[in-house]
Amino acid sequence: MTGAVQELLSATPPATPFDIVRAALVELRVSDLTASEHFYAGLLGMIVSARTDDAVFLRGWEERQHHSLVLRQAGAGEPAAVARLGLRVRGEDDLDSLASMFAARGLPWRSVEAGREPGLGRALRAWDPFGYPLEFLAAVEQFPTQHQRFDLHRGAPLLRLDHLNLHCPRVEEAFGFYHDALGFRCSEYISTDREPERVTGLWLYRKPNVHDVALTAGTGPRMHHFAYWIAEPAGVLRACDQLAGAARSEVIERGPGRHGVSNAFFVYLRDPDGHRIELYSCDYWTGDPDHRPLRWSVNDPRCRSFWGTRAPDSWYDESSLVLGPDGQPAALAPARVDERDQRSEVLA
Amino acid sequence: MTGAVQELLSATPPATPFDIVRAALVELRVSDLTASEHFYAGLLGMIVSARTDDAVFLRGWEERQHHSLVLRQAGAGEPAAVARLGLRVRGEDDLDSLASMFAARGLPWRSVEAGREPGLGRALRAWDPFGYPLEFLAAVEQFPTQHQRFDLHRGAPLLRLDHLNLHCPRVEEAFGFYHDALGFRCSEYISTDREPERVTGLWLYRKPNVHDVALTAGTGPRMHHFAYWIAEPAGVLRACDQLAGAARSEVIERGPGRHGVSNAFFVYLRDPDGHRIELYSCDYWTGDPDHRPLRWSVNDPRCRSFWGTRAPDSWYDESSLVLGPDGQPAALAPARVDERDQRSEVLA
Amino acid sequence: MTGAVQELLSATPPATPFDIVRAALVELRVSDLTASEHFYAGLLGMIVSARTDDAVFLRGWEERQHHSLVLRQAGAGEPAAVARLGLRVRGEDDLDSLASMFAARGLPWRSVEAGREPGLGRALRAWDPFGYPLEFLAAVEQFPTQHQRFDLHRGAPLLRLDHLNLHCPRVEEAFGFYHDALGFRCSEYISTDREPERVTGLWLYRKPNVHDVALTAGTGPRMHHFAYWIAEPAGVLRACDQLAGAARSEVIERGPGRHGVSNAFFVYLRDPDGHRIELYSCDYWTGDPDHRPLRWSVNDPRCRSFWGTRAPDSWYDESSLVLGPDGQPAALAPARVDERDQRSEVLA
Amino acid sequence: MTGAVQELLSATPPATPFDIVRAALVELRVSDLTASEHFYAGLLGMIVSARTDDAVFLRGWEERQHHSLVLRQAGAGEPAAVARLGLRVRGEDDLDSLASMFAARGLPWRSVEAGREPGLGRALRAWDPFGYPLEFLAAVEQFPTQHQRFDLHRGAPLLRLDHLNLHCPRVEEAFGFYHDALGFRCSEYISTDREPERVTGLWLYRKPNVHDVALTAGTGPRMHHFAYWIAEPAGVLRACDQLAGAARSEVIERGPGRHGVSNAFFVYLRDPDGHRIELYSCDYWTGDPDHRPLRWSVNDPRCRSFWGTRAPDSWYDESSLVLGPDGQPAALAPARVDERDQRSEVLA
Repeated sequence: MTGAVQELLSATPPATPFDIVRAALVELRVSDLTASEHFYAGLLGMIVSARTDDAVFLRGWEERQHHSLVLRQAGAGEPAAVARLGLRVRGEDDLDSLASMFAARGLPWRSVEAGREPGLGRALRAWDPFGYPLEFLAAVEQFPTQHQRFDLHRGAPLLRLDHLNLHCPRVEEAFGFYHDALGFRCSEYISTDREPERVTGLWLYRKPNVHDVALTAGTGPRMHHFAYWIAEPAGVLRACDQLAGAARSEVIERGPGRHGVSNAFFVYLRDPDGHRIELYSCDYWTGDPDHRPLRWSVNDPRCRSFWGTRAPDSWYDESSLVLGPDGQPAALAPARVDERDQRSEVLA
Repeated sequence: MTGAVQELLSATPPATPFDIVRAALVELRVSDLTASEHFYAGLLGMIVSARTDDAVFLRGWEERQHHSLVLRQAGAGEPAAVARLGLRVRGEDDLDSLASMFAARGLPWRSVEAGREPGLGRALRAWDPFGYPLEFLAAVEQFPTQHQRFDLHRGAPLLRLDHLNLHCPRVEEAFGFYHDALGFRCSEYISTDREPERVTGLWLYRKPNVHDVALTAGTGPRMHHFAYWIAEPAGVLRACDQLAGAARSEVIERGPGRHGVSNAFFVYLRDPDGHRIELYSCDYWTGDPDHRPLRWSVNDPRCRSFWGTRAPDSWYDESSLVLGPDGQPAALAPARVDERDQRSEVLA
Repeated sequence: MTGAVQELLSATPPATPFDIVRAALVELRVSDLTASEHFYAGLLGMIVSARTDDAVFLRGWEERQHHSLVLRQAGAGEPAAVARLGLRVRGEDDLDSLASMFAARGLPWRSVEAGREPGLGRALRAWDPFGYPLEFLAAVEQFPTQHQRFDLHRGAPLLRLDHLNLHCPRVEEAFGFYHDALGFRCSEYISTDREPERVTGLWLYRKPNVHDVALTAGTGPRMHHFAYWIAEPAGVLRACDQLAGAARSEVIERGPGRHGVSNAFFVYLRDPDGHRIELYSCDYWTGDPDHRPLRWSVNDPRCRSFWGTRAPDSWYDESSLVLGPDGQPAALAPARVDERDQRSEVLA
Repeated sequence: MTGAVQELLSATPPATPFDIVRAALVELRVSDLTASEHFYAGLLGMIVSARTDDAVFLRGWEERQHHSLVLRQAGAGEPAAVARLGLRVRGEDDLDSLASMFAARGLPWRSVEAGREPGLGRALRAWDPFGYPLEFLAAVEQFPTQHQRFDLHRGAPLLRLDHLNLHCPRVEEAFGFYHDALGFRCSEYISTDREPERVTGLWLYRKPNVHDVALTAGTGPRMHHFAYWIAEPAGVLRACDQLAGAARSEVIERGPGRHGVSNAFFVYLRDPDGHRIELYSCDYWTGDPDHRPLRWSVNDPRCRSFWGTRAPDSWYDESSLVLGPDGQPAALAPARVDERDQRSEVLA
């Protein structure tokens, strides 16, 4: 199948006046900051870079960037949610170019001054047309790397933030924005075999591996998961053993296993608020200029699980709410397609 | 819980006039010999030691014993089944002592002359009180080991037969025979928390690792699976990748994962007739004279799956028929307990 | 030590009118084409993409690019050598910009027409000021990837070409060219503790991992090794086991082990002509705009071997000759520093 | 080569009135108890079972036996040495039978009363004809196993004591005692190709894997190393990374690598007194009654290092002194053969 969809997804993005480097940060609103810190720092072994009254800032063992994960106490009565999906840009000028683009499209945006939170310079907050709360980061304070302090590693260990996966009602429309306006390219996609070919999942990248942002069909806007890179499959297995050894196997939702899509060796965990984190290793190089997307049929069971194990329904159905410009959870819309049903337009 | 059941299972077996060394052989009746050979030799990479008109004889990469797996074409209209569950004994005298024991208990037995099949010396066929078709082997022709011909390994690679797992309606009674009459010891067991404590699974050994024979509650007599030893978890993962790479992921029924029971890193595969083979690694030493059984509560989800993934129902329900002395499948009886239901006496 | 050397190596390269994507190809002149093909395709399991009368073209399991390794029969009386060190550029315009740059510097260059060899479009040959035979590639014919055909992988398996390592008499001068003229950045370096601080090794990148080109002090111009990416350390160990299983352990020169520099898990092999190939895994992300080089002291034994094993002298002393514009091996000059001696200017 | 040596080493040992189960304990005299505890418990992560004024008692993560390693402060002016090489027997009666055997041969022995040290019941001390200080253990206090507390494992982790390796001047004579008097069988050996065939190393077992006691040619009586079992090669690599991460890579003497002999994946470490510990995984089953020894030629480089790396001379030359009945280090004699020289009778 190399029809219109393949051509659309293979197109080189237009040049942009800014340069998005990679997915670089997530902020989670959490209902119990102590419990969440215990999960990410105590069980998974992330490094705590800083704490404030209502937040903890963490990074992976390879990361020099001050932090890639923010845990922030949700206010009384506020739900657990995702407040920021961070993307690193090359320089501060990029923030201005991006602000112009968002303004021109009538999308909400605001400047974030340096020093707003530990370790972070000037940034740009903006909401894409589908309601995902993006934050573009320029300068970030640097630590020395600790990736070779193997004697201190515990838990996973998580090396670096790799990507963000969004549950999205209309992935084809979202592709338009991420490709045309932000300059993302497509590495892999899942689509229906029946005409009209409908896309149920898209893997988009700026850095040259499989993805920085995945858009998968589901009720949204929500964040399905964020993922940290693990050096090798043995590290993913060790994380599972350590979680179970600590009598916390209930946090393992799916896996370990290998994805057909991306070839990653993975496991999915749920934090105390149900936010989902993937431990991810073993994908591949996509940076050649003639790299074309790889298609998977939604009817190929290996596409989601190379070894054939069906993911639990929770993995398809549950996701984290995202916060809109008003600080409230964005209103949800259902997707028109469902990978499991392999039906399209079911809700049209 | 260290009550009567623990005491019963911890007892040192009485001395026997024979010495069973280990689980050592399985004979599968298969509906399509070519398909089965392709599965075990082609996909999983076992070594073919010999072929006859109606059978293929295979061994693992470490095994010097002529073969540990026999695939034999089932007759027209005959079902796929297990014809022999082989146990190695120390010497030919043991065969005579065993024959006397079976005769004294009024159990069916017969001598098997040397040369009946390639590579095998004199042996003893016998049926235990529950209908499992045992075969006791003394002399077996020896090959040079090939475990260091890593350049030739494909598939798993399977090193050596490790154990047999039997679906058994009344595991507590079966323990009596395997412990008292055959001299097996118990390494681990699963039991209910409510009184009366009922055992739903038993791991029994002669060689000093976790088991040679497991008895797990289920409709029987049937064979749940047989297992080959794999050197390390990485080998189990590689087997999955190779099966999926060959577009045969549908043969993977459960896993890979770690068992709470036995600590094994495992995956379960189904052959073309549905016979189940486990690739098994990472258990532990049980040979100290004061080694006592480890109990798991049936209510601990880590007992069957250390990382918490529930096994599919097929794994609990489906097993291979076994052949009785008349060459027909043994009649089946249901178990009185079911691990999943965590109820006992449900069928009483 | 964050003095002048650190500042020099941390500088952002000037903008270039071309965009070098990554290290992408090596051509080896070999004394026995059959023996070399057996080494790379037979023992290491690379994919043969094409053959001509005097050459074999190979690629790794992940690579879509027609080939990344060329083995070409050396003429009678000609030595084994390296004929081309290939770098991928973003587009054909880049070839023209590069040609202008080489011409402006008075360096030898020539255009290579499309179709010169199977699968390759138009390219540019050029020699840098130190005599290394570079080739810049634009369009390359694409194959479907085979990285998930795990059932077909043998040997290593090698996934993709990762980098080139050059033995270089004057690495500080060479840095000037690679950084200023070609736009490479530095990820790590080794230098002396005594003043004046002398650099004995430099790791330079265009793609955002540790390196595309390393320059290490040694008699040159020669190629020390080229490296293919392996998914995980378990794959490196398996390669060693398979080589030894095939009774070819003599091709293993150094390792397996972990480098302090780059954090890579590695093994070095020598092909039938002594050309050195590294199997390489586990390095890290370097693509952030504020990424600064990591310094290692030449006196830290972990820098070359994180676990402390000293590399054999052959690894320091032996390298592949490179061919100049006249097709003859480039004349050699000794280095002024030697990592082992930890002396500088010893030959001044 | 299947001559007289092979026949000698293949012989079934005579029946003994006692049953040695396995190698089970080592006592090291150390010059700085704090430093040694830091090495074994702090760096390698062993469990401390008990402490007394002058000793620390440790066990591996799988072990239920109270301890398998004793570190005892050497007296002022006393050298670091090995005080006990422990073997587990099946019951207390075995101690009496062994005492009779040692007495009949005129060898030194003494009873050890229960309670002499934490967790240990009655035992027997005895010296073999070559001066090795053996201790036979019957009852040992049991702990619950902790092998699945993966969340607590640090360092290696060491699961259980596997074997003892002795430097021995006359390995062929020593074989006579270990085989004939103690009932050990031979799994592998190294011998010269030239006549008369001389044995330079012997691997002897009671438990059914490759060895409990190895005898290798060298100045003795000394202990070359003791070894703990590691679950998989990935655990051996992780141990190296953690040692190097803690800036202690100098304790790694040899490896990681694979042995040809035994097929083990290994690394050798030196403790603060130079006592050598091996982390060992991946050997094989030897318990079949017809298992015959595997011969390696001393001229096959793969025999000691399957991948070809030559061990450092320190590994061949240095070993731990052993204490005689008088508490003084046993007098040393040189070996008549040296594996490296591949000469025999060089010292005759």
